[in-house]
Amino acid sequence: MKILLDVMGGDNAPDVFIKGAVNTINQLNKDTQIILIGNEELIKERIQTIYKKELNSISDRILIQNATEVITNHELPVEALKTKKDSSLNVAFKMLKENEGDAFISCGSTGAFMAGGLLKVGRIKGIDRPALCPMLPTKDRVGIALLDAGANTNCKPINLLQFAKMGSIYVERTLGIKSPVVGLLNIGEESEKGNQLTKEAFELLKVDSTINFGGNLEARYMFDGNFRVAVADGFSGNIALKTAEGIGRTIKQILTQEFKKGLVRTMGAGILKATGAIDAVGNVLDYHKYGGALLLGVEKTMIKGHGSSKENDVQIFLKQAENFVNSKVVDGIKESLKQEKLT
Amino acid sequence: MKILLDVMGGDNAPDVFIKGAVNTINQLNKDTQIILIGNEELIKERIQTIYKKELNSISDRILIQNATEVITNHELPVEALKTKKDSSLNVAFKMLKENEGDAFISCGSTGAFMAGGLLKVGRIKGIDRPALCPMLPTKDRVGIALLDAGANTNCKPINLLQFAKMGSIYVERTLGIKSPVVGLLNIGEESEKGNQLTKEAFELLKVDSTINFGGNLEARYMFDGNFRVAVADGFSGNIALKTAEGIGRTIKQILTQEFKKGLVRTMGAGILKATGAIDAVGNVLDYHKYGGALLLGVEKTMIKGHGSSKENDVQIFLKQAENFVNSKVVDGIKESLKQEKLT
Repeated sequence: MKILLDVMGGDNAPDVFIKGAVNTINQLNKDTQIILIGNEELIKERIQTIYKKELNSISDRILIQNATEVITNHELPVEALKTKKDSSLNVAFKMLKENEGDAFISCGSTGAFMAGGLLKVGRIKGIDRPALCPMLPTKDRVGIALLDAGANTNCKPINLLQFAKMGSIYVERTLGIKSPVVGLLNIGEESEKGNQLTKEAFELLKVDSTINFGGNLEARYMFDGNFRVAVADGFSGNIALKTAEGIGRTIKQILTQEFKKGLVRTMGAGILKATGAIDAVGNVLDYHKYGGALLLGVEKTMIKGHGSSKENDVQIFLKQAENFVNSKVVDGIKESLKQEKLT
Repeated sequence: MKILLDVMGGDNAPDVFIKGAVNTINQLNKDTQIILIGNEELIKERIQTIYKKELNSISDRILIQNATEVITNHELPVEALKTKKDSSLNVAFKMLKENEGDAFISCGSTGAFMAGGLLKVGRIKGIDRPALCPMLPTKDRVGIALLDAGANTNCKPINLLQFAKMGSIYVERTLGIKSPVVGLLNIGEESEKGNQLTKEAFELLKVDSTINFGGNLEARYMFDGNFRVAVADGFSGNIALKTAEGIGRTIKQILTQEFKKGLVRTMGAGILKATGAIDAVGNVLDYHKYGGALLLGVEKTMIKGHGSSKENDVQIFLKQAENFVNSKVVDGIKESLKQEKLT
């Protein structure tokens, strides 16, 4: 298996990607290779600086694919993909298309990542709109897949049904949860609640035999662990994702502030920290611990990491990529679409 | 001032409302009265049981207005308002309409509360759609007003502009923040981001001189304290509100679980609890501490509390109602709409 890793995107490029790859390679299957995509000269220079040796003496399963340009967050995605032919993203997309890579991880421009997935890597036949699908934390630490979390700001009911199918297969194959319960993210639990889109989508989801539809899911119950897939249009889904992220971050900051107020509190917090309690809470808060967001509905495994990702996150993404390819999620989605035609 | 208090709605009716009123009355202005609306016989019986005396020997500023019926969350709002003429909600709406009450607080059916506000109490002329407006927590403990948080699932750009005006006046008059920064809740900060509604609303907000528009507000930055008003359609706004509530609740539960694991952790948590650190975090998490949600855009002060509200929450709602009436927010909204016509 070949995992392509964009070392040029994100706030901490390229070092965290290089270190993440080096730290993880021996934890992956023996036949898995990591291809670092980016400026070859820069990568070699950084490896020399960090490890005081050359790449081939570190691992023969980490390779470099040269790409001289970088697409930033500030560029218009489609435009940038057209002009920057030798960007790390374009190089990766080409490799995926030509079967020179099985999975791709990037922490760079989300817009260009999604546009490239759709236009260059290509949709799975039968899926109208690929969707961004992160895992969010749940009380029981298992997680819930949320899609679409931002790829499609305007959706039709049929898109939401397709999201439900893809999310179900993803959760079933990677988490091993048989027939995961799917919820329609909504403002109330009753079937008549919501806007035009959710009302129409509800009717489609209700009668589809390939998914285990549990009805409307109020955002406040999303983290309780009773649902494993939440479907939404990309606008609402993104609002939910970012709100969860924002409130989580705020709480962490306040915990830190409060725990520092006075010696006695500092002692109490010290004890909790020493026993790992604070970290345990932090881990649940931090949805990045659940891996990157998958772009579901494209022909290859594509994982989008947060721009602020660190070494440890990269490690998680790499394992997630391997797991996703091994679980044959893309094949699963294709099979599910075929079944549907037969029934 | 007369504050009408629905003692029949919510999970903990009627006791928490009776206790909340009794505990708060002496903290309110000397000319403020609280009118308990509900089954008179039941209220008197509960007061006798709780306080071992009659209402008039407790306070002459707490009165009872009899209402024999209750509208539950399980009824269709408009239908229920039509059939249950003597419900606590209908009795309150009539009193508001006839100027026998200045403010109304209910923790009962949100749907019936909003429908009654619109149909029975009446819109402010110039406001097309009243909006539900809770305060959400921010890092600096000041809060941010979010509207619409669920009154209107489908909105037009003009509605969002009106929400922005109402929210600005609310925050300015009750929190004393001059020209509060207004953000348009969106999936990215750039002006071209979002769906059709946010793109069109952006153009309206940008050119309106009566508000201090700060541009698009990504949900993840909502709690940072840089914006004081967030405007959204009622669907997205509700998703944001409920997500924040859900993740907050989940974190609380996990904190509690983790802090109980083993003696040493329990000690650490005990220290933090004793010094008030845990409560401080809890208070920030708990957006109910910021009061109930206002129904902005109707002719009277209407506050919707959470169904699970407790005695302390009722206390907050009562003070909030008094503050809102004294701050003349309704008049402020009317003036702002007039100004607009003049300019």
